Amino acid sequence: MSTSHRKRPGRPSGTSDTRDRILTNARELFARNGIGKTSIRSIAAAAGVDSALVHHYFGTKEQLFAAAVHIPIDPMLVIGPMREAPIDELGLTLPSLLLPLWDSEMGAAFLATLRSLLAGDGVGLIRSFLQDVIAVEIGSRVDEPPGSGRIRVQFVASQLVGVVMARYILELEPFASLPVEQIAQTIAPNLQHYLTGELPGLS
Amino acid sequence: MSTSHRKRPGRPSGTSDTRDRILTNARELFARNGIGKTSIRSIAAAAGVDSALVHHYFGTKEQLFAAAVHIPIDPMLVIGPMREAPIDELGLTLPSLLLPLWDSEMGAAFLATLRSLLAGDGVGLIRSFLQDVIAVEIGSRVDEPPGSGRIRVQFVASQLVGVVMARYILELEPFASLPVEQIAQTIAPNLQHYLTGELPGLS
Repeated sequence: MSTSHRKRPGRPSGTSDTRDRILTNARELFARNGIGKTSIRSIAAAAGVDSALVHHYFGTKEQLFAAAVHIPIDPMLVIGPMREAPIDELGLTLPSLLLPLWDSEMGAAFLATLRSLLAGDGVGLIRSFLQDVIAVEIGSRVDEPPGSGRIRVQFVASQLVGVVMARYILELEPFASLPVEQIAQTIAPNLQHYLTGELPGLS
Repeated sequence: MSTSHRKRPGRPSGTSDTRDRILTNARELFARNGIGKTSIRSIAAAAGVDSALVHHYFGTKEQLFAAAVHIPIDPMLVIGPMREAPIDELGLTLPSLLLPLWDSEMGAAFLATLRSLLAGDGVGLIRSFLQDVIAVEIGSRVDEPPGSGRIRVQFVASQLVGVVMARYILELEPFASLPVEQIAQTIAPNLQHYLTGELPGLS
């Protein structure tokens, strides 16, 4: 988003205008600094509004992120069950939680978002989500030997991103038509290997 | 490429113009019909030139494909060693052959091609390459139980595409900075599992 907004002093005139300005600034800050280092307060300041208004419109920071990248669900609906799952079941839990979202009625919105992110400068947003949300949520639980958690999670991410690419962007057949449960079960042992197996170079 | 070219009767005036017209028609036909079902003759006919001229300029169909998608090597340099490798070593051979190309001086050209393909309608070309070249070359060798080879190879493709995405498009760190040998060795057992292991739904 390189569109520059004319700064207007005082209270913004229209609600829709204010929401858009918050989202634009959120996208810019999330992409530049990542989710972890971006605060609601800094977004509110950049948009020229009060933090309370941002919370009022969008809820938590995760919900604002989802709104900024047009993801039509609260990421906590996925992150919650991830936190609950035992470590040695994460290999199956992760794809079983994430892949069905792409086959749901939300899939079209995801796909449109992914395409536009890939085409433009939104790669920073996907990177932030993978590095800050997934790496922090999962990586800290599989950090054995210490320091390896982030790398383990990024191997998992590479397989999950690849499934999405093969299935929804490249539309390889018959891969794209396989039941999502079959995909999840097929990649599960490999994801588990990345999460808790012995990996070259990590010792 | 939806640009329509004015048809000119008779022999084309300039060599560079003829090459471009062949490449444009090759891209269109490869994307529409796949590599397997596209002949040099049909490309030559669409471009209004003799097949011999296409061979003269571009060599084999694989080389023409590589030129059409701006891949600066002959795919046979990769496909040859793939054919030589024993089946139970393919899990390591495939990433060891393919991933270093992305880290070589050709990497920038690959990346530019991938970005433009993802942004535009060139997805059909990547799909053709994966479905026709890789699936035929490798899939026929791991087709156990019969009919499973194509699916096995597409799981492999999903992991390889994901590595490329995570490393060169999303630039996840530290993943993007790991030695390519470490990536190849880490994903090798998983690729081998896809190629020759027991997979759910394939029996």
